[in-house]
Amino acid sequence: MSSVGVSHGGFIAVHGGAGYHSPANSQMYKDVCRNACQRAIRLLHDRKSAVEAVAAAVMALEDSACTNAGIGSNLTVNGTVECDASIMDGDSLHYGAVGAVSGVKNPVLLAENLLRTQQLGNMALGRVPPSTLVGDGARDWAVRNDISVVCCDELITESAKKSYTIHKRKLDQLNAEMDSDLPESCHKRVKLERSAPDLQNGDDSLFQNSLDSHLQNDLFQDTVGAVCVDHSGHVASAVSSGGIILKQPGRLGQAALYGCGCWAENDPVGKFGVGVSTSGCGEHLTKTLLARECGQCLKSGEDPIQAISDTFRHKFLKSPFIRNVEKKLGGALAVKVDSVDQSRLDVDVLWVHTTDSMCLGFMSTQDASAKAFISRLPEGKRCGKAYIVQSKNISISKVPGT
Amino acid sequence: MSSVGVSHGGFIAVHGGAGYHSPANSQMYKDVCRNACQRAIRLLHDRKSAVEAVAAAVMALEDSACTNAGIGSNLTVNGTVECDASIMDGDSLHYGAVGAVSGVKNPVLLAENLLRTQQLGNMALGRVPPSTLVGDGARDWAVRNDISVVCCDELITESAKKSYTIHKRKLDQLNAEMDSDLPESCHKRVKLERSAPDLQNGDDSLFQNSLDSHLQNDLFQDTVGAVCVDHSGHVASAVSSGGIILKQPGRLGQAALYGCGCWAENDPVGKFGVGVSTSGCGEHLTKTLLARECGQCLKSGEDPIQAISDTFRHKFLKSPFIRNVEKKLGGALAVKVDSVDQSRLDVDVLWVHTTDSMCLGFMSTQDASAKAFISRLPEGKRCGKAYIVQSKNISISKVPGT
Repeated sequence: MSSVGVSHGGFIAVHGGAGYHSPANSQMYKDVCRNACQRAIRLLHDRKSAVEAVAAAVMALEDSACTNAGIGSNLTVNGTVECDASIMDGDSLHYGAVGAVSGVKNPVLLAENLLRTQQLGNMALGRVPPSTLVGDGARDWAVRNDISVVCCDELITESAKKSYTIHKRKLDQLNAEMDSDLPESCHKRVKLERSAPDLQNGDDSLFQNSLDSHLQNDLFQDTVGAVCVDHSGHVASAVSSGGIILKQPGRLGQAALYGCGCWAENDPVGKFGVGVSTSGCGEHLTKTLLARECGQCLKSGEDPIQAISDTFRHKFLKSPFIRNVEKKLGGALAVKVDSVDQSRLDVDVLWVHTTDSMCLGFMSTQDASAKAFISRLPEGKRCGKAYIVQSKNISISKVPGT
Repeated sequence: MSSVGVSHGGFIAVHGGAGYHSPANSQMYKDVCRNACQRAIRLLHDRKSAVEAVAAAVMALEDSACTNAGIGSNLTVNGTVECDASIMDGDSLHYGAVGAVSGVKNPVLLAENLLRTQQLGNMALGRVPPSTLVGDGARDWAVRNDISVVCCDELITESAKKSYTIHKRKLDQLNAEMDSDLPESCHKRVKLERSAPDLQNGDDSLFQNSLDSHLQNDLFQDTVGAVCVDHSGHVASAVSSGGIILKQPGRLGQAALYGCGCWAENDPVGKFGVGVSTSGCGEHLTKTLLARECGQCLKSGEDPIQAISDTFRHKFLKSPFIRNVEKKLGGALAVKVDSVDQSRLDVDVLWVHTTDSMCLGFMSTQDASAKAFISRLPEGKRCGKAYIVQSKNISISKVPGT
């Protein structure tokens, strides 16, 4: 399926999030992933780098109102949008991240700007350039660096508002019911901190009829991301998220945290590279540093699918760092590339998740169109307790036109 | 040196930062470290946990105006104080972090509150409690959870203001000089991003006479922290920082980032534990995930001093993730504890740094007073290029009174 006139080889894979994707909306999610792949492939054809292409892919995912990133992000408990995003360049190993940032149209572009700033070396007076910026400071950086900022409300969709309204009402109702059982003096602290019935963990006796299972799953899904290989075999990865619905303002998920949301690493002599982008419950992915763990295991030389399977079993599902979590919600999209010879890239793309489903897409510069699909846990496997891992091997000519 | 009437054994070690400590101020730094140790030891005598004791020690360090944490923090480029802090419990493996937070008197107490909130399980409606909070959201959480908040200016000391004024003037002068050489259209971007003469990296030809070397070093010092072992052999660690002077508002350093600022881990059967708290240049420590790397190496069973020495050589000074950094500025305080038998704890305390100096203190429940000292790179070893590692082994009765 070679196309005519392309100048350079490369590969992109994207994910629209690990979580729950209703069959009714499958086509929409797949279209979003296809579009993101095509945006990146156009750049790879134009000899752009993996960093540029992966940022373009994630930007396309952010620009879709149906993903939990950029416009359409989940709302915080205060009804606002706060986004996390990060990007890593496997060649320079530079990394940029933003967290809890409001009113930035494409958080991944802000993260990319931080990465590029680091590539320029130290700032005036020998100051080390920041690798992670959060909150208002991150937004100020965007303004001063010509990254598109918008009115905060412009990122809020009708659908996000609707979902927020339903959940917020439930939360207020729950807090009111708890309050009425407690002496006045206990209200404040208990409201904020008590261990409440946990719908995710199956203890839903109080509220089993009040939230349908679809909305329940929406609480923990849809961080988007991408991994990319350019014609040099350089890998880059990125991730972007609106975070968990009804999150505390200021909360950072894995997409803002080094080693947790994305990972990319080429070996110094350019023989191979690995890239990872994660999705799922931010706190679970952070405590297990899952992006880095997946990246490390793929460097081991072991069979990639075996390596990533072992990592998900031992470093995620059985991780002591989340041992008290009943349902461990995570997914990863990964790529391993070997520069077999001067003319060919050998790419393994892998996806793995413990969530009900994960939406994925991939495309090489040899393809005329992107493939997109929804991976689902096999029947009988329980969300948060088991995982599915799959892979595909693709051989790409570095200069497909020749 | 047993004391009378103590009820339980334990150990605390603190650091007042890796950076530069002038001989003139040595006594002041050491007094601060001694005081912090004594605060923690009093709690350990009262059967408090390692988490409580380590938080109390760091709180004492924050409350000292001469450390770069809490009151006395370095100022951002806007002249404000923004703090990072985190804490980790080796027993539960829970972790809490805050970043870029203003107006919170003791950021470590806010981090501890997040840790404790996680120990209560999920919040209302099955929401996962946040492990990292930043910016205004972090301050709001403090307000609602009775963590002491203050007017932002109350954390600014005269000394911090003076240092800020000197550096800010230099920065403005530098930017003005750069601007005058450039066409109007380039000003904005270049001012923010250009690779400027880097005083840290020795390219100080333009400004060699304009900043004295003491102030130069002040740019990269003084994240404080502690590691603690309680009578159960449980380890906890914490870290707190005002960040680099003239930092961009919203910038997170290692003290706010998982795996970078602190690490604590007990093995599940309680035979051993490790704790680490780092200091130095936040970006260097983040990119190398240095706290976690040190923790991991101490679990290996290798001789602790050899293990941490190898880690500093291979995972920090030779790390590919900071390969373009000429001066790698970092330090770590670490503890490894073995529960030798039911009555005794065997504690190795280790300190290592590539910076000119690191201020340290430690004390066990058997001691009547704390030891404090300033570790300095031996003459001939170059800051940021070499390191010094030292250790001390201490045997502690779990119940010293018996």
